[in-house]
Amino acid sequence: MTANVLQIIRRAKDPMAKTDVAAVSGLSLSAVSDHIERLLKENLIQVSNIGNSSGGRKPRLYTLNKDVGYIISVELGTSSVQVALTDFDCNILCYDRSPVNLSEGPETVLTYIYKMVEQLMLEHHISKSTVLGIGIGIPGPVEFASGLPISPPIMPGWDRYPIREFWSQYFDCPCYVDNDVNIMALGEHAKGLNFEIDNLIYIKIGTGIGAGIIYDGKLYRGSSGSAGDIGHFDVGADVNCWCGNTGCLEAVAGGKAIASKAKELALAGRSDFLLDIVEEKGGLTLKDIGLGIQRLDSLSVELIRDSGALIGRVLASLVNYSNPSLISIGGGVSEFGDIVLAAIRQGIYQRSLPLATRNLIINKSILGRKAGLIGGAFMTIDQLIINSTDDNAHTFFEPKAKLQ
Amino acid sequence: MTANVLQIIRRAKDPMAKTDVAAVSGLSLSAVSDHIERLLKENLIQVSNIGNSSGGRKPRLYTLNKDVGYIISVELGTSSVQVALTDFDCNILCYDRSPVNLSEGPETVLTYIYKMVEQLMLEHHISKSTVLGIGIGIPGPVEFASGLPISPPIMPGWDRYPIREFWSQYFDCPCYVDNDVNIMALGEHAKGLNFEIDNLIYIKIGTGIGAGIIYDGKLYRGSSGSAGDIGHFDVGADVNCWCGNTGCLEAVAGGKAIASKAKELALAGRSDFLLDIVEEKGGLTLKDIGLGIQRLDSLSVELIRDSGALIGRVLASLVNYSNPSLISIGGGVSEFGDIVLAAIRQGIYQRSLPLATRNLIINKSILGRKAGLIGGAFMTIDQLIINSTDDNAHTFFEPKAKLQ
Repeated sequence: MTANVLQIIRRAKDPMAKTDVAAVSGLSLSAVSDHIERLLKENLIQVSNIGNSSGGRKPRLYTLNKDVGYIISVELGTSSVQVALTDFDCNILCYDRSPVNLSEGPETVLTYIYKMVEQLMLEHHISKSTVLGIGIGIPGPVEFASGLPISPPIMPGWDRYPIREFWSQYFDCPCYVDNDVNIMALGEHAKGLNFEIDNLIYIKIGTGIGAGIIYDGKLYRGSSGSAGDIGHFDVGADVNCWCGNTGCLEAVAGGKAIASKAKELALAGRSDFLLDIVEEKGGLTLKDIGLGIQRLDSLSVELIRDSGALIGRVLASLVNYSNPSLISIGGGVSEFGDIVLAAIRQGIYQRSLPLATRNLIINKSILGRKAGLIGGAFMTIDQLIINSTDDNAHTFFEPKAKLQ
Repeated sequence: MTANVLQIIRRAKDPMAKTDVAAVSGLSLSAVSDHIERLLKENLIQVSNIGNSSGGRKPRLYTLNKDVGYIISVELGTSSVQVALTDFDCNILCYDRSPVNLSEGPETVLTYIYKMVEQLMLEHHISKSTVLGIGIGIPGPVEFASGLPISPPIMPGWDRYPIREFWSQYFDCPCYVDNDVNIMALGEHAKGLNFEIDNLIYIKIGTGIGAGIIYDGKLYRGSSGSAGDIGHFDVGADVNCWCGNTGCLEAVAGGKAIASKAKELALAGRSDFLLDIVEEKGGLTLKDIGLGIQRLDSLSVELIRDSGALIGRVLASLVNYSNPSLISIGGGVSEFGDIVLAAIRQGIYQRSLPLATRNLIINKSILGRKAGLIGGAFMTIDQLIINSTDDNAHTFFEPKAKLQ
């Protein structure tokens, strides 16, 4: 129950008095006092300031102690990795980013990431003993309970690789692994939106297309942890997908598909701007299309608009099905500006039923490229608290396994 | 908190000892004793029998008193209505069914239904004072908090009609209104599956096609209460739908679409069996197609198989997206036998990702045509308990509004 009290204080917008905590938790005031005593002793919360009172002594207000320790957050993408150290309130303190080649396999890639983290910690004088937890987001399905990647299609050699054990060679704290879009959705919900929206779909549009789902204020993972896969929605196009089917959304509207179609059309003489890049580099990336949009290259604009409209059509079905309050658009493509957002909105409104869109907001992610790192930290702190010990004789974050 | 204890006892598979209730609720044993005392006094639970003990006195076991009162459950369909009286554990005690024409408007239709209910109660010697609640499922979107139908497309004249107020003319107990597929999903989850599956999608295939969603053990209604609409998923066909778009699933694979296509093909000479019916009655209904399947009419089989495969393709997308443990198929078409189920399964497996179907079961609804009536009673009892008074000075089910 101490864990519940910490969660309540941590998630609150403002510092809380004991009476507030009692009201939210349903616990008695004396039970709340005991839990708060323990959390103060363990340095997890602090007295923030003295609150208002309608008479008599003003109540003490409590808030999270964000300086109790550090969290390592890693967001592994299809072609790059971001790493950060955050405080206990998910604020990014230092940050690095690097290209990465997933097909070099887990040992090589994770060792490389570990060295990035080590360098960051060295530069910022952070010692290993002050790190409380490690959170990793990966671009594929994860069995969350075990932290194992499950047949991740774009990560050859990573199937069931024990990522947690890798990190336990270097750190004495727990490591949690989740799907990248899940942690983005968590970050957006917790820190972008301050928990103010209960039902939202976070869409990442990059090389691939994926969704993270928050239902009734909680991340929804599904029964095998694979919920949120929208890349293989049937859009009825005659295009082969790596999954063995035809007409998958990702195979038509994903970043990789856009880049390869752009190359084909550039070579056919549709864009001088893109043709120059193809001739110089031999191919195109999503970044080149982004550049094309900045330069008002009409082919780049057309391709991104078509992709957005198709994604919007698929989202329309999901809006009818799950009636969210918010669709938050993230990932590389979302940073191409209003063109994408407008096309997605048009697609959604064209095919959604009126009642389903009555209260719907469709916006760019508030946290942008940082959603995954912040969400990774949030997920990690959440798990640390959920798995904490209720046993007063032990330290709050002492792993349960060690107690037995 | 008395309400929580009643919910725990009501939802338990077996009778419970006080210690069991304390363990599940997190309440102290003395608090549990107080709540159980009150529930016994109000006749809502009863001592079931004496349990086993590892030594010392054997504990008393408590169970719901299903005979504390009656629930009226009404499931209004597109062309017929079912009404039932159930006990407090959702068992159907008596039942009636009748064709109905929704376009006659709410006053006429509801008055007709009231007379059916009155007749049932008369026949079974049930007095009004013993009815604790009324639950109504309607084939359209409902704003659950107010019980108002919201622009229900196939119910002209019903928009925002105060169904609750209609019933309050005749009964002194609360009335709750919900979407028909929602209550079917609730019934299937609570009484068909005994809460043993947490993530399921209930699909109703009848004149229209709709879904009821149970996520993490709870009915998911979405932000405006319209969640579960899958009838307007884009299946890419060149067919107009009443919603103004083309290619909606319902317009291609729904019962109405099947019947009209069957008529067209029968007139083109594809089925002597169906042609005879068209010539006799001027048209075809879904029931006629069902008859055709029993008689092995090849056109009927083909149409139902095509419809099932298309529904399966849409469900495949939803399986990828929401990764449920179970898809439960209900509604009139589900009773056409294994042909439908096989076609749906094929469609789902063809386009779902392997991880998403690893633990997936696809089955016919266990409760069949009774899912809605049982679920309507379940929803009503749930709401009665949620809205009950915690004030010991008043009767448990005394509406809160009356206390003020």
